[in-house]
Amino acid sequence: MSVFESYRLKSPIVLPKALRASSFEAVYEKDIQIGEQVASQFAHLRSCHVHRLVATSGQVEPLRVGVVLSGGQAPGGHNVIAGIFDTLAPGSLLVGFLGGLKGLIFNTYKELGPDEIDAVRNIGGFHLLGSGRTKIDSLDEIERAMRTIDEHRLDGLVIIGGDDSNTDAAYLAEAIEASGRKTVVVGVPNTIDGDLRGPDVPISFGFDTACKTYSSIIGNISRDLISSKKYYHFIRLMGRQASHITLECALQTQPNLAFISEEVREKSVHEVVCEIADLVESRAEQGLHYGLVLVPEGLIEHMLDMRQLIEELNELFAPEHELAALFNEALIPSERIDLVRAYLSEKARRCLALFPRHIAEALVYERDPHGNVQVSRIETERLLAHLVSRELQTRRRKKEVPFAWQSVFLGYEGRSAYPSYFDCHYGYCLGKLSAILVANDMNGYMASLANVHKEVEAWEPIAVPLVSLMHVERRLGKEKAVIRKEAVDLSGEVFSLFEQRRRHWRVQDSYLHPGPIQFQGPDEVVKSPCFSIVASVAS
Amino acid sequence: MSVFESYRLKSPIVLPKALRASSFEAVYEKDIQIGEQVASQFAHLRSCHVHRLVATSGQVEPLRVGVVLSGGQAPGGHNVIAGIFDTLAPGSLLVGFLGGLKGLIFNTYKELGPDEIDAVRNIGGFHLLGSGRTKIDSLDEIERAMRTIDEHRLDGLVIIGGDDSNTDAAYLAEAIEASGRKTVVVGVPNTIDGDLRGPDVPISFGFDTACKTYSSIIGNISRDLISSKKYYHFIRLMGRQASHITLECALQTQPNLAFISEEVREKSVHEVVCEIADLVESRAEQGLHYGLVLVPEGLIEHMLDMRQLIEELNELFAPEHELAALFNEALIPSERIDLVRAYLSEKARRCLALFPRHIAEALVYERDPHGNVQVSRIETERLLAHLVSRELQTRRRKKEVPFAWQSVFLGYEGRSAYPSYFDCHYGYCLGKLSAILVANDMNGYMASLANVHKEVEAWEPIAVPLVSLMHVERRLGKEKAVIRKEAVDLSGEVFSLFEQRRRHWRVQDSYLHPGPIQFQGPDEVVKSPCFSIVASVAS
Repeated sequence: MSVFESYRLKSPIVLPKALRASSFEAVYEKDIQIGEQVASQFAHLRSCHVHRLVATSGQVEPLRVGVVLSGGQAPGGHNVIAGIFDTLAPGSLLVGFLGGLKGLIFNTYKELGPDEIDAVRNIGGFHLLGSGRTKIDSLDEIERAMRTIDEHRLDGLVIIGGDDSNTDAAYLAEAIEASGRKTVVVGVPNTIDGDLRGPDVPISFGFDTACKTYSSIIGNISRDLISSKKYYHFIRLMGRQASHITLECALQTQPNLAFISEEVREKSVHEVVCEIADLVESRAEQGLHYGLVLVPEGLIEHMLDMRQLIEELNELFAPEHELAALFNEALIPSERIDLVRAYLSEKARRCLALFPRHIAEALVYERDPHGNVQVSRIETERLLAHLVSRELQTRRRKKEVPFAWQSVFLGYEGRSAYPSYFDCHYGYCLGKLSAILVANDMNGYMASLANVHKEVEAWEPIAVPLVSLMHVERRLGKEKAVIRKEAVDLSGEVFSLFEQRRRHWRVQDSYLHPGPIQFQGPDEVVKSPCFSIVASVAS
Repeated sequence: MSVFESYRLKSPIVLPKALRASSFEAVYEKDIQIGEQVASQFAHLRSCHVHRLVATSGQVEPLRVGVVLSGGQAPGGHNVIAGIFDTLAPGSLLVGFLGGLKGLIFNTYKELGPDEIDAVRNIGGFHLLGSGRTKIDSLDEIERAMRTIDEHRLDGLVIIGGDDSNTDAAYLAEAIEASGRKTVVVGVPNTIDGDLRGPDVPISFGFDTACKTYSSIIGNISRDLISSKKYYHFIRLMGRQASHITLECALQTQPNLAFISEEVREKSVHEVVCEIADLVESRAEQGLHYGLVLVPEGLIEHMLDMRQLIEELNELFAPEHELAALFNEALIPSERIDLVRAYLSEKARRCLALFPRHIAEALVYERDPHGNVQVSRIETERLLAHLVSRELQTRRRKKEVPFAWQSVFLGYEGRSAYPSYFDCHYGYCLGKLSAILVANDMNGYMASLANVHKEVEAWEPIAVPLVSLMHVERRLGKEKAVIRKEAVDLSGEVFSLFEQRRRHWRVQDSYLHPGPIQFQGPDEVVKSPCFSIVASVAS
């Protein structure tokens, strides 16, 4: 074990004043609107209230609780489990299901005692239980999950996961309610992407640490930049569907340019490329031949012409399409491209023509297991740099502009970092609250906290109905109530902050260098949550 | 400015007991051997002694001092300058030359006052003065540098740089001595690569921070690994000529496999690929389909057959070779490869055949400004992963082994990180000592410190003759005395430590997760220098 790991293991957790008791009761806080279509799918699980949890003088009983880590790893997950464990009364049982929801379906588990918990306090990763992407999608799977719950005679099950896993949690809660069982299912919001949130769910755990970890690296790179003044650095950040991470990192590091997928939906690939080329040219006029550009993972697939290309390609590759018959594995990529091109619209064809040969080939050749184009395999940061370089070459006839670039993808290093002070506490308190919700029989709720922009002592435990986070989407041809992925709100506080500031960053270097995450030192260095949390909660 | 930056700016520096005085004198510490060939090139600069600097009660006079940041950025450089500034008596002048040694040749500079210095204390990067790779190679350049020194009437010049810049410092010191000037030139060892060291120079500043920064990221990735268990991560680290960084990061993070360039000189590319493929297979037998492999930047060019290929290619491309006439820009890459292949030896041809087409093309098509093969442009981590994948496919006839991989290059984020506690202090003390060496007229010395494996209070200032770090190399057809780049010593303490431990890391996961660099907290977390420093100094 590293010296740092043993130091973090022993670091104490501060509790909010509102959580310093052993017994709690739920009190009505406010009403909440739930759409009719959503409500109709949750006939038995129909709470329309947000509750606050307040201390009482009651007795606490031992409980039997199960816990699952589901979805992508996020810093703070282990503290959720520690929070549950520490809150359970003596004589309780804590069962951890292994490898995500699969562990619940197949009843693979381990009992969690003090040794297991003390080995992961304040530690990143999900290795205590592992995780997985399995969903509980079918009635059969719901039945099996309920059988596992019965087998362990669980009073409650805590599902720590993203939007999909919390959607599953809601359906499981509904089925349990319908079956007359006494168990409760509680959800905890987990994802570094920051897209699982709502009016009463300020953020998922992990977002703070991931953004700070990425920003620390970006800040080092921009420090290098202002000394060596040689390169444009293109940095790709996680976030396929929403750009919260890029937005937060942009606020923390102030790059020359940062793209937000939600904002480029009406732009073409060429327009985005030109925007960067314009930047390079206008900086060159000031004698600046370096810069910093942040792009979210999902940027490419959000752009107007690219969306059309992807859509057309997906259609062409549907098994029922006549092209399917012409296609066979023996065809070499270049022949396939010619074949495909003939079927594409003018706009899609022009978009495909933009890409270097190997990317175009990959687009028309590689399919994911559902038969869809594998856009996520494109290294957007390299592709953009390449296209900008080409664009500048065509412009060069007028004037020579130096353009050397480097690129990097920041991903794994943020998902499993040691959780920040915020995420250690946020995770722990969410865990503690989950155990309290189980003790209070609050089926189908998500554990949440209010006032998280303030110091930990002032945080307030609340319970938010899972159904209140849902809307109806078309999935596999059917309308289904699912938990919303929250995109960046282009009229929200965080984006506004970005919008006000970014125009100053383009030519006048304003890079910030946030440094590595600290665990001791001044409060403003150690304890402050990131911009997105403060701005969105405080507003 | 980020909150963190203003926190770091104000953080205090602790001084070694031996440096808590205002006046010092040099006392003889020990003799040192200098080769005859080296000595012959430094007729006027012939000190064979290491000196210790000890406090005296003398008066300190104002001095006029110049300072240059040269070579690659390393964390701690700004503290060297702060150390000089704080040590100079009132009425002194500190001139910073801009953009490396070029600033000295062309006399571009700025005067450094408290405002400039207070803006960079404990801050990474070299942006205060910028840096550069310019060398002072010719007599004319030496003359120009001396003219600049005369113009500012400098009592001393501090050159903060790597092996090349300190070589230049030695020749400049010699020329100054020969010319009868009173100025002194002092060198300070700067490089994250850790290859500028000697018996009395424990390490260059920057190495500690860079290795800790990389190790923090590697540790996060390995944390992800043990939770998701899906990928082999191939991580390339800086270090073309020496593998100190990879060695140190391996000790800090305990990957399954780490290659040390100095150790693979008798191996072929295929042997290295097979070593990794064997690892993948033996881990697969244990049910482990993931892993962590570290490779130094210079790995490829150190391997036996690759060295031969590079050598032959460089010869083929010499302007006097008959092939040069056949080659012209109009030839397309594939024709060029065929042409080249005909001229290669059997061994070199087989090595070239290993590479994917685009890398082979780049090798025979792209040249650096000296006409040499651009090996450094090869993304070794991707190439190896690709070759391992192919090797496993050929073996797969026997048995199917899953092999999915990710790769990353860690470079810029370590060069300009906020300097660690060690590097803040090491840099500052080296700067302070540089000013003391100027005050003591010690021309041609490198500032160094003994006892750096102990707490800062116990460090001892010493002066090491630059010539004692030199040996003779053939450069541009001539014998020249230059400062040695120290390769990893395969019989040294640090490598032995690695050798003893690494066999346990292969199949039995022993990953360590060192966490982000901390500036407050327990001493063992904040203050300990990295393994290489402790092991090599303490031995």
